[in-house]
Amino acid sequence: MDKLVLLPGPVMVHEDVLLRSAKQVMNHRSEEFEEILSECIELAKYLFQTDGNVAVITGSGTAGMEAAIYSLVEPDEPVVSVVNGKFGARFADIAERRGADVHRVEFEWGEAADPKAVDEALSETGASVVTVVQSETSTTVLNPVKEIADVCKDHDAYLVVDAVSSLGGVEFRMDEWGVDVCVTGSQKVLGCPPGLALVAVSDEALERMKEVEAGSYYLDLVKYFEYLEEDPMQTPYTPAVNAFYALHEALKKLKEEGLESRWERYKRLQEVVREGIRAMGLDLFVEDDSIASPTVTGVVYPEGVDDREFRGRILRDKYDVVVAGGQDHLAGKIFRIGHMGDVKLRDMITAVTCVGMGMLELGVDVDVGAAVERMAEVVAGS
Amino acid sequence: MDKLVLLPGPVMVHEDVLLRSAKQVMNHRSEEFEEILSECIELAKYLFQTDGNVAVITGSGTAGMEAAIYSLVEPDEPVVSVVNGKFGARFADIAERRGADVHRVEFEWGEAADPKAVDEALSETGASVVTVVQSETSTTVLNPVKEIADVCKDHDAYLVVDAVSSLGGVEFRMDEWGVDVCVTGSQKVLGCPPGLALVAVSDEALERMKEVEAGSYYLDLVKYFEYLEEDPMQTPYTPAVNAFYALHEALKKLKEEGLESRWERYKRLQEVVREGIRAMGLDLFVEDDSIASPTVTGVVYPEGVDDREFRGRILRDKYDVVVAGGQDHLAGKIFRIGHMGDVKLRDMITAVTCVGMGMLELGVDVDVGAAVERMAEVVAGS
Repeated sequence: MDKLVLLPGPVMVHEDVLLRSAKQVMNHRSEEFEEILSECIELAKYLFQTDGNVAVITGSGTAGMEAAIYSLVEPDEPVVSVVNGKFGARFADIAERRGADVHRVEFEWGEAADPKAVDEALSETGASVVTVVQSETSTTVLNPVKEIADVCKDHDAYLVVDAVSSLGGVEFRMDEWGVDVCVTGSQKVLGCPPGLALVAVSDEALERMKEVEAGSYYLDLVKYFEYLEEDPMQTPYTPAVNAFYALHEALKKLKEEGLESRWERYKRLQEVVREGIRAMGLDLFVEDDSIASPTVTGVVYPEGVDDREFRGRILRDKYDVVVAGGQDHLAGKIFRIGHMGDVKLRDMITAVTCVGMGMLELGVDVDVGAAVERMAEVVAGS
Repeated sequence: MDKLVLLPGPVMVHEDVLLRSAKQVMNHRSEEFEEILSECIELAKYLFQTDGNVAVITGSGTAGMEAAIYSLVEPDEPVVSVVNGKFGARFADIAERRGADVHRVEFEWGEAADPKAVDEALSETGASVVTVVQSETSTTVLNPVKEIADVCKDHDAYLVVDAVSSLGGVEFRMDEWGVDVCVTGSQKVLGCPPGLALVAVSDEALERMKEVEAGSYYLDLVKYFEYLEEDPMQTPYTPAVNAFYALHEALKKLKEEGLESRWERYKRLQEVVREGIRAMGLDLFVEDDSIASPTVTGVVYPEGVDDREFRGRILRDKYDVVVAGGQDHLAGKIFRIGHMGDVKLRDMITAVTCVGMGMLELGVDVDVGAAVERMAEVVAGS
């Protein structure tokens, strides 16, 4: 492998999954494909922890977000959007493009959403739909979806969750928590190539979608669910057949590992990274462990370290390690280490160690030895 | 290879292209990916025969159609849609979903569009946008795009063409003909796995798109073109990176073969199929060679032949040959042999021969020997 890619998506793909995607294309309206599609849907229900409905769309996670909003929300309808990062803002923008009357509940980038503020916004606006991102990839913050779902229940509002970079990597229980619509992507925790969005919809939300004329033709979720009832089961438009092969393999791997085991494994990866970074003397962007995402960790650049120099010339070109920069106003201020997909403990150790060595090259006073010792303790204790 | 898949898309993919798609995922916002993306765009301009603008969207051909309409057309705007098959109807439905005032110019399924009727519709409605499908996959008819483009010029109307199942397989000259927007898909003539839509936009149409607020967030073409100007060049949302690897390889193959050589090759494949079918005594759905699509051929079922029995139990299960059925009201009445993607002359001969043998098994009086002799003549004469 050329580079160790530790982005918060797309992620490195296991060879079993990659090779499956190189299988010859088949008829997407056949019993053969039905077998793959139906197993993907069943496995996805396990992933979402729902007995409801799951559709798979050929497109990016953003396509899934748009499908959710354009199928559920009507023009001029008041919508409350939690905005504490780039993807929360995107949800609001999509709802606005749909013509909804969007009320943004904003928090500083790096802070978690406060359910009380959502409660107040719902009281003020009477909105019937709330959007929130579970793992805000841009800030590495984990939002309290369960608590926000409780608030939504009090106001009889539908909750739409972007779990694109979190689902499968952190606790999420769609039915138990009462989430109405949830979106995820193939290229994050699932460890597939990018190209598919998975959207879960509760029975109640589906009933509502049937009454709304979707704002999109391609992304009309009701049509996806109708085609799942066909014989053979199918998608309304030609699906990325090869991406489904990969998804099928990846979801089987996830089931085999077990959701809760994977949540635990990600917590350990996260702990190794966070403790290693702290021990060497660098600052985490999200200091509070309880609101830090288990799929991506943000590190604050020390004064004077140039992003391109550090991530490009040193980490990528010398160490063959690829991490992400900051987005929007965080560009140049933080870098982000993804720990999702097919990553191992050793990859985290490599990342932290190379980060330290790169910082040393740039004259930053970090204690890489302390980082390695601390990581050893974390691993030993687990 | 398990089955000989001769659908009008998705098609069989060459092993070089398939294997490229199994390459490890890379950062989609990197110089490495820029190289692939920019070469794809340049090669696609050759494919479309344009010096204009090309965007690649992760999604099916329908996503490309929606991107075209939702980016170019405003709500309440009059649009003329040529409808002589399922995909022409889809274009009209998409425009209607966008809120446009759609005027359908309809023709029998199996007939080609008459440019005069488009001319009249434009005079009557004053519409500024026309939609048409080049190869109407559902009926195997080729519509006269060049002549319709001439009519649009007279009325100063934008022409949006669905060339999903034709581009690369039949003459199409975007700039010379004056087509404004053209959509194609990866899984047809290009011979890639499904999952990408390519959309070409003239400079003039792009200017207009910049003035329209797109009806979609994910499918807002202006955003795709903005991101192509970034450094490094990129897509607004995570692209199906592996599908781009495949597209890159397939477009290089196409360039190497040469567009006009491929058009010629497809004509020969078409002639072999049509002449073979005729010689054995079956009826072609489109009798007139001059309006028959060079990428797919429709054959009329003789009285009493059951579609599932013929295509399923016999062709697919006994001969391992997969062809498509009819769509909508043509279901059970015709079957369709795709000749696009990585298909060889020998595949056409296999298809025609197996069709004949299957018909014999069902007691249909066909002359398979005559078909083979006629195909030999066609091949010898080429």
